[in-house]
Order: sequence, then C-alpha cells, then structure tokens
Amino acid sequence: MHDSHIRIRDPFWDGYQELVRRTVIPYQWEALNDRIEDAEPSRSIRNFRIAAGLEQGEFGGWIFQDSDLYKWLEAVAYSLRRHPDPELERIADEAIELIGAAQHDNGYLNTYYTIQEPGREWTNLYEAHELYCAGHLFEAAVAYAEATGKRKLLDIACRFADLIDRLFGAKPGQMQAYCGHPEAELALVKLYRATGEERYLNLSLFFIDERGRQPSYYMEEWERRGRTSIWAQGSPNLEVYQSHLPVREQPAAVGHAVRAVYLYTAMADLARLTGDAKLREACERLWANTTRKQMYITGGIGATHLGEAFTFDYDLPNDTVYSETCASIGMIFWARRMLQLEAKSEYADVMERALYNNVLGSMAKDGKHFFYVNPLEVWQEASARNPDRLHVKPVRQKWFGCSCCPPNVARLLSSLNDYIYDVSADGRTLHVHLFIGSEAKVRLAGRSVAISQRSALPWDGRIEFAVSLPEGEGKAAFELALRVPAWFQSGAPELAINGETASYRVENGYAKVERDWQDGDTVLWLLPVETKLIAANPQVRADAGRAAIQRGPLVYCVEEADNGKPLASLALAEQPGLTETADAELLGGCVVVEGNGRILDSSAWAEDRLYRPLDKRQQSVRFKAIPYYLWGNREPGEMSVWLRY
Amino acid sequence: MHDSHIRIRDPFWDGYQELVRRTVIPYQWEALNDRIEDAEPSRSIRNFRIAAGLEQGEFGGWIFQDSDLYKWLEAVAYSLRRHPDPELERIADEAIELIGAAQHDNGYLNTYYTIQEPGREWTNLYEAHELYCAGHLFEAAVAYAEATGKRKLLDIACRFADLIDRLFGAKPGQMQAYCGHPEAELALVKLYRATGEERYLNLSLFFIDERGRQPSYYMEEWERRGRTSIWAQGSPNLEVYQSHLPVREQPAAVGHAVRAVYLYTAMADLARLTGDAKLREACERLWANTTRKQMYITGGIGATHLGEAFTFDYDLPNDTVYSETCASIGMIFWARRMLQLEAKSEYADVMERALYNNVLGSMAKDGKHFFYVNPLEVWQEASARNPDRLHVKPVRQKWFGCSCCPPNVARLLSSLNDYIYDVSADGRTLHVHLFIGSEAKVRLAGRSVAISQRSALPWDGRIEFAVSLPEGEGKAAFELALRVPAWFQSGAPELAINGETASYRVENGYAKVERDWQDGDTVLWLLPVETKLIAANPQVRADAGRAAIQRGPLVYCVEEADNGKPLASLALAEQPGLTETADAELLGGCVVVEGNGRILDSSAWAEDRLYRPLDKRQQSVRFKAIPYYLWGNREPGEMSVWLRY
Repeated sequence: MHDSHIRIRDPFWDGYQELVRRTVIPYQWEALNDRIEDAEPSRSIRNFRIAAGLEQGEFGGWIFQDSDLYKWLEAVAYSLRRHPDPELERIADEAIELIGAAQHDNGYLNTYYTIQEPGREWTNLYEAHELYCAGHLFEAAVAYAEATGKRKLLDIACRFADLIDRLFGAKPGQMQAYCGHPEAELALVKLYRATGEERYLNLSLFFIDERGRQPSYYMEEWERRGRTSIWAQGSPNLEVYQSHLPVREQPAAVGHAVRAVYLYTAMADLARLTGDAKLREACERLWANTTRKQMYITGGIGATHLGEAFTFDYDLPNDTVYSETCASIGMIFWARRMLQLEAKSEYADVMERALYNNVLGSMAKDGKHFFYVNPLEVWQEASARNPDRLHVKPVRQKWFGCSCCPPNVARLLSSLNDYIYDVSADGRTLHVHLFIGSEAKVRLAGRSVAISQRSALPWDGRIEFAVSLPEGEGKAAFELALRVPAWFQSGAPELAINGETASYRVENGYAKVERDWQDGDTVLWLLPVETKLIAANPQVRADAGRAAIQRGPLVYCVEEADNGKPLASLALAEQPGLTETADAELLGGCVVVEGNGRILDSSAWAEDRLYRPLDKRQQSVRFKAIPYYLWGNREPGEMSVWLRY
Repeated sequence: MHDSHIRIRDPFWDGYQELVRRTVIPYQWEALNDRIEDAEPSRSIRNFRIAAGLEQGEFGGWIFQDSDLYKWLEAVAYSLRRHPDPELERIADEAIELIGAAQHDNGYLNTYYTIQEPGREWTNLYEAHELYCAGHLFEAAVAYAEATGKRKLLDIACRFADLIDRLFGAKPGQMQAYCGHPEAELALVKLYRATGEERYLNLSLFFIDERGRQPSYYMEEWERRGRTSIWAQGSPNLEVYQSHLPVREQPAAVGHAVRAVYLYTAMADLARLTGDAKLREACERLWANTTRKQMYITGGIGATHLGEAFTFDYDLPNDTVYSETCASIGMIFWARRMLQLEAKSEYADVMERALYNNVLGSMAKDGKHFFYVNPLEVWQEASARNPDRLHVKPVRQKWFGCSCCPPNVARLLSSLNDYIYDVSADGRTLHVHLFIGSEAKVRLAGRSVAISQRSALPWDGRIEFAVSLPEGEGKAAFELALRVPAWFQSGAPELAINGETASYRVENGYAKVERDWQDGDTVLWLLPVETKLIAANPQVRADAGRAAIQRGPLVYCVEEADNGKPLASLALAEQPGLTETADAELLGGCVVVEGNGRILDSSAWAEDRLYRPLDKRQQSVRFKAIPYYLWGNREPGEMSVWLRY
C-alpha cells in the first residue's frame, strides 16, 4: 500500500510529528553543519563540500558520516509528505545539489574515500561502510522522490547503484563480497520498488547469499590489507558482523545488534519478494530467538556495549545494558517486514513495544537531546565513575560524534504513518497493526475506501474507526482485522459496529470481521488499559525476584525525582495497591502509577558500616512510577524499570 | 618480633602449609620453567638465562615477569624456615646463582631491559615495573637470608638497592621519580630492617614523598618518550597509579587496587617508623574508605576489571567484580602494618576476612589452579559469552600469562605464622590477632615466654592457650590481649584462666588480662561460632534485598552443584531455618549450612516466553550453602554469595 494516503491525526502522536518537523529536523540540520554549541561537530556537510571541491580540508567524523545527511534527508522527505514546507524543501534541494557535486563521474559517492583515501575504494568492505552509506543514500532518494516527485537524488542513487551492480557479483572480475554493515540490502529493495529495476533486487539477494560464505571474503581482504584495520581490532570477528555462517543457517541473533536487525529486515523483504522458504524460516527463527530470548521489556536489544552486541539467550543485564536506539529502530523495521511477510500480531506487538518505550524514550521532550544507550537501570555516579558503565549516560546528549541515532529517530517518527495498516495481498483484508489516530485512503476489494481511526492510546484503549466510501458506491466487501495486543489480557476485547456488539474471529492475533461495509459505518474497539505487574522468565537472572510495571503498551519506571535514592532500596509491597492518576502537568501530561512499597531502613545504618547482621525492618512508602519514555526529563538521578517484590 | 619463633600447628592450616610446601612451590617451579602442559609459559627462568648469557632468545612474558621468580623464592624461604628441605634449598640456591649472573656490574638487575631494551633503563617508570621487580627481589632476599642465613641474594639486592639509591633522590643529577607500581617502598623497609641501613628507609620515604607531586614526573616522562606507552593507554592516568595527589592528601582509595594497597602498606610502615602524623592520618583515612565503603564481604577489593581498579564508594557489583587475589593479599599486608601501627581489632578483622575468604578461595584444593578474579556471583555462560564478564572465570586456571597471583598466595600462606601475634613496643603486651594453632616463643617483660595456641576455627570457636616459662623462672608479668572478632556478636566471649572464669577489659577490640603468668597457666577463650545472615549497607545497590550467610570468619555461598540453576531463582524463605552440619566427606571436610528457600516456578514458563504477568507462586526448597573458599572445586556451574530474601 502506498504511504502517502495515510496521515496521522492523533492527540499523542501529532505532537511528535510536529516536534520532528519544527525542532528535530531543523536542529539536526544545524548539527550537520557543525553549528551546535558544546556538541561534537558532525562534519557531515563539510565533508561533502570538501569532496565536491568547494572547500579544503581533511575528512572529519566517523567513516560513515555521510549517512547522517542521508538519514536527515529521508526524514525531511517524510516530513514534506505530511506537511509541505518550501523553505525546508529548498534547503534539502541544496543539500542534494551538494551530494551530486561530490559524486564521481562513474557514479561513486563516498566523501571519506574521495577526500582521504582516493584510489583505495572498496578495499575494506569489512569496516569502511561504503555500501552502508550507499544504502542510506538509496533510502533517502526513494523517500524524497516519492514525497516531492523530484528525481535528482534518485538519479544520483541509481548511478551509484548501477556502479555497485557492475562491481559486485559472481561474474569474472566482479567482487564477490558484501558490506560489513548491512543496510544496502534493504535499501536496494526500496530502490527496486521505486524504479522497478530488477537488477537492484538481484543485487540485494546477491549480498544476502554471499554473506557468511567460506572462505570468508573478510579474512582474505584483511590479508590483502596487510592485516591492518581501522579500529585495530585484530582479525575480523565474523560473528560480530553476522558473517560467520550463511544467513539461512544462522541459528540465533549474534553480534552487533544494529547490523543484525538491518540484515534481518532485508532478509524478510527478500523472503517475501522471492518466496524463498529457507530465507523465511531463517527470519522466523531469528525473530523467535531475538524477541523471546534476547529482548529487553522496553523493546531494546543488545546486552553489551563491547561490540554493541547481542550476547546470548536470557542475558539481559539492566545496568550494563546497551539497547542502542538504532537497534530498536531496526527492530521496528524488521517487525514491519515480518508483518508484510505474514500478518501476525506478535510482530506488531514487538513493533509497538520498541516504539513506545525504547525509541520514544531515546529522545528528550525538547527534541534536541538523545540517548544512544537506553538503560533499564541508572545510578548516575556509576555512569561517571565505573568504567564498565561509562557508556550508560544518565542524561540525554546534544549530539554524538557517532550520531547514527538522532536522525534515525527522526526518519522513523516522520514515517510512522507507514506502520499502521496493511492491505492483504488479495486486496480483501485491512490489517490494523497500530492504534494511532489517522486518516487513511486505501484500495480494498477494488474500491477506494477511507478509514478514519481515533485512538486514545497509550492512555486509554478506546479506539474508533469510521468507514467512508466514495459517493454513490453503496457497499464494499472487505475484512477488517484489528490487532489484539499482547498487553490486553482480560478475556476478549469488545467490538461494536454501528453501536451494536459484533462478533469476530481471531486469527494470528487479529480480530477479523468480514462484511459489506457501507459509507458511514463505525467500529468501536475497546481495549481497556490496565496496569499490570510483569515478570521476566526465570532464566533472566537480572530480573529474578523483580517485577516491572506495564500499562497498555507503556513500560513504567521509578525515578529518583519522585522516590528518592537509592532506588535499589525500594521494593513492591506484598499488596502493591497500584493506582492510576492522569497528571496533566507532569512531563507534558501522563498517567502516573502509584503503589505500595517498602524501603530498607537506611536510617539504622551508620555511613561507615558496610556489613552487619540482617535486620529486615523496612518502612512503608507510596511510590510513584512514570512511563519509561519520559524518564530523564527532570533533574538527573537514579532510574529503574524493574522493582524487587 | 622475630618471625622464626612462631610455628603453625593447626588442623585447618597445617594442610595449607603442607600444600604450599609439597605442591604449590614445586608446581610453581615447574611453571617458572615453562613445564606445565597447556598453560601459558612463564618464561621467567628463561629470561634470566638469556640475561645471564646462558641462552639466546627474546624476552618472554610480561615486563614484570622477573617478580614471579622473586616471589617464588620468598615463598621458598618461608617454607624452609618451617620445614628445612635441602633439595629445595639447592634449587633455590641455583636460581639465586642465576639471578646473580644476570646482574650488571653496577648492580642493575632486570631481564626485560637487559634483553630487550639495553640502554633504555629507567626511561619508563610509569609502566616498566623496574622498581617493582627490584622490590620483590628485596623481599625475597630478606626472607631468604633470615631463613637460611645465606647472604648471596641479600648482597645482590643491596647492590641493586645501592644503585637505585644513587640514581634516585633530590640531589642534582638524580631522578626525582618513583615507580608506577608501588612495591619497592615496602620492600626497602624490609631491607632496612634486615640490614640496619638507614639509606634504604630514607629512599622508601623519598619515593613516598615524591608520589603525586606536581608537575607530574609521569607526564614529563611521557613527553620525553614521545608520548608513547607500552600498553597504548594514551597519556598517563595519574589516578589509576595513585599519583594524582601527594599521598598524605589522598582522600579515598582509587585506581589499580594492588598498586593502592602495596602503597598503603609502605605508608603504614613509614608512619610507624618515622612517627609522621600526617602519614598516619592518611593511612587511617584510606583504611576507613577502603574497608567501610569499597570492600566486598569476602575481603576482596577492586570493583572493575578495567584498570583492575577501585571505582567509588558502595559500588560493589557481584557479577562484573574484579577482586583480584593479589589485591586481597595486599589488603592483608596493609592490615598487618596497621596492626603494628596500632593494635585495633578492626585491622585484624579485615585481615581474617580477606584470608579465609578471598585469598583461600583463590586456590583450588589441589594447589595447582588459581583464580585471578574472585567473583561473588558466577553464571558460567556469561563468563564465556558476555564480553563484560569474560574476566570472571568460572573455573580456576592452571597458570596465567600475568601470573602475579599464584606466587603471592604461596608466599602469604607460607609466612602466615607472622600474622598471628604482636608484642607491644613496651614489651609488656602480647596481642593475639588470629586464632591459629601455633607454638610461639616471644620476649615478654624481658622474659622468654612460650605460648601454645590451639584453635578449632574456622569450624568451632574454642581456643586454648598454654603459657610456658623457662625452668626456674617463676612468673612473668605481662598482658594477654585476645581479639574479640567482629563476627562474634552475642554478648561478651567467655574467658577462663586455669579453668576458672576470668574478667577482662576490652580495649580497641582486644580482651586484655594483665597478671603474673606462671609456667603451665592455661587460657580458654570461647567464641561460639554462629551462622548469621548478613546485610550490606543499603547504599550498596548490588546487595539490596539480599543477604549473605556468614559463620564465624567464613562467608558462605550457594553452588549449582548443590542447588541447581538458575541460582538467581533461589531466595531465602521468611523463616530461613538455618542448620549446620559437619560433612567430613564434602570437599575435604567442612560445615555445611542448609536453609529454607523459595524458588521461582520455572515449570510454569514456556521456554519461549520472555515476559508475562507476575505470578508469585514459588516452590519451597531446602538449599545448601558451602564455605565460599571451597567454591568451584566440583563441576563448573553457577555460584552466588548473596541470596535474595
């Protein structure tokens, strides 16, 4: 289904859409131009200017810095689609001119190699991110062409893609290789969709098929480079780059988490487009492993900062966690593709979990500060003074030297309308994955159908739909499939059509109603939002004897600002007596959960006594929890998602 | 008091003394000669042979590898003192010949510089450990001379010390500098004691006074070396090497834990010998900070493997812990010196805690396998697959590339007789710090007094003393001062003299009785050993809501071998019902503690379910705890000291 016909209108999400448009995108443009005070300079625009011959200087920033500009342009494209803005479009067009000026005659485009190592292109596929940056160019180009109808960036992208297609492949003289950081694979699928050019689809499949073949291209390349590497890591770590085995044989999610989910996203795309059963099985296997064994309750993935990586099943430490923002965004990309492969609610459940918690929480309310790492437990002194936890920042940062995350947030939020609905391949079923107020125009059963959704989520689970048909068209026979969220646990949700309770059947986690819909039909879908205490599988050592608070899709946390410290002293009482209060003032308005807690009696301890016989005396307190996505927006302090009980 | 008059005879400790003599020392000799299969070669002897011109080759092992041989010789000396062994002495003498052959004419002795960088001596005091290795030579030389009466090694040491004394100092042309790794400071005090040469004492004090002066010698040296370093750490980290401030101004224990406690040991020696009040205050301040804010219940120190370092107050993670064996041994050295500075039981309490738990636990029962890191919580899959926890080995290793710890254990255990008693400066009080069965001959009130101690610790707290006076000497008027251990918590211990209850006064944690002692007098000191649940200060986030089991000086732990896994699922029941059983078969015999536990009901969880609403159902179990020092002597598995309650 084409994106441009869905427009979000939602009391919760409109604010984010506007924040991205009014603040995030302009702020990130300043960042790309090195105009944010006290923040590490991006050097992204400057690199393009140098590569284009407009300025003299050295390359600055990370080797993959080009991708920040591309991701920003992609976000701009989505924003323009929703909200035309001639001034923003003019700035974007200028940036695109600059990108074009940095492109070589043969189509090559990468400012690092152009400035710093001309002639050494494609000699370090393991680390140098050339195809990764190309992929982000392709994604931006497709989005910009679809939003504005302008082909300039798409032409730049296709010229580069054509060069890559000539250089890489199984024919004599071609490189039988693939990028250390998956991204081109999923982007080539988009480029194929936008252009209809099958070469791009085949090239993506080639990269996927090559990955993990023995002997390893990376090992050979490393020998050719005289065993040198950019980051002095020694010989290539094939597992960290998901190239230890052919992708169809990989049993579990391993290695760098962002790389992993970008790879799996492309695999799911290709499984759908090619019907490759082995590839689909691999996607399903890796999905099950990731989401059922290696995912934080916030939808975060990546248990260690060393390699920004997965570790192994059930290893989910809350304090030394990584849970990179980009990895959670990648989970959402992947979940989206899994839904297109098969509409099963578990994919949408994970998509929603990552979106409302890890991803939303990564951005400050001001749209100008971001978390790269999204911890489930923060002790700010430890973040400052324990080197194992330096990566866990207790406050969001203005910008990062490695700033992959902020523009990724921007492009996800500004394209969120693409994540709400799917029409089945036969054109007869409309799946509603996310309950986000929106106006959609879709083709169903050969008709143009307008669906209006109103949702009170995440605070309340009353969701309403209205069906509109073009004037004069009497009826449309299609199936409406409404997700039954995993967080809804009390019996069957109530469905009413035109005010009357209606029955439905549940298939793959979707409540389905097939009928002849008429103009003006209304649907009421009631998903009462209840506050629940959630436990983790006992195999998760870090969460043993602890519970998290979840209300609808939102995970909650306790903060020092509300509950004092140390938060580790706080436990849930036997009778937690949880209550919910809407607080319109707090953090822009949210539902606060309060409960009965017990805290260790610190007053009975001398400061200089470290150990003594156990005394279980505890004080009763009323604690206060706020949605996780809002944490860290007040004075810095401790935070915890999991509470002892 | 002179060491040679105290001999351990104790059912618990005799085994360790013999293990060191029969197994640890011979095994480590094999290791130093690279004859342990499948273990990293030491290269220590080989380096000396190359430096002596007896063999060709490159230097091998760490830059401080010489110290392993010195520490082994020191252990040999202590062992010979207790148990003469001509064959062992012959091997040691040969090693000493070899050391002498590697010494330069001017006294210089360091195989790394002799082999690898001749002419570059003393250019990298920050990292190169030359004075550190010299210190271990001095310690070995003093011990060997005292044990055997042979001066050869002592002469080698003095020649080197004399060279160092000429090179370092405040006079023109001298280096105003000090070693990156404290050790020479404490060793020079020993050399002073053995030789009476005040220059050595003054040199030690010079190093102590120089440390932390601004501008930093290390920064200047780094510039002179063209900003290069051996371990590519960038510019010197002054805090990690305790050189950020003059030692008398340092407010808290920071940096590399072994370096720290070796430094503090020398500071305490010098405070006592010089009467320097500021230095003593610094010792007391650093002691309070270390033991009351930064010490594990096992007597381990060092909360992070990055820098093998202290982090900050109350930061004592159990899983990512470091707690290096050498650091705990250094704590014992330091505690010993603090006791000499002032006989206060808290020093002996810490000494005992570190000895019976962290240090004893570092060695396998076979005397051939060692822990470098001593964790309080082990999940063996995490040790294999989470890079944040790779340093935590679930099984003791045969030998280490950096093998500072095994010979340190050997020299501590073989000199343990030196840690039991002190005679006060006025010669009128005998302090009993440790309750270890032993025969002592000491000078008290001008008399030669023999004290026989019998102790049933750590299993039972019945301690007996017998006083013997030389024939014909009727009485000796002295004070007996028996430590009241911190683990004894039930009222006042019972003291009986010649079978009759006697009163005593308690001063600085010692029960003191002054009387005219007669030959044949007996003393009974009853310290009932009870099993206690211990809590940590609520500021220690890692231990919140958890308790440890302690029985007398022994900390206990639960192991997978007895309790299954995951151990995190196990919690103490409301009524723990702890019982004690002596098990003569288990792990060579120990007292086992059993108790009532509850475990999370794993059976109710599908393997592929990660989160679900909390269900507090738990199963009752009887759990089994063993002394921590015995952990890891069966099949590898999970282990935990702290239990949820």
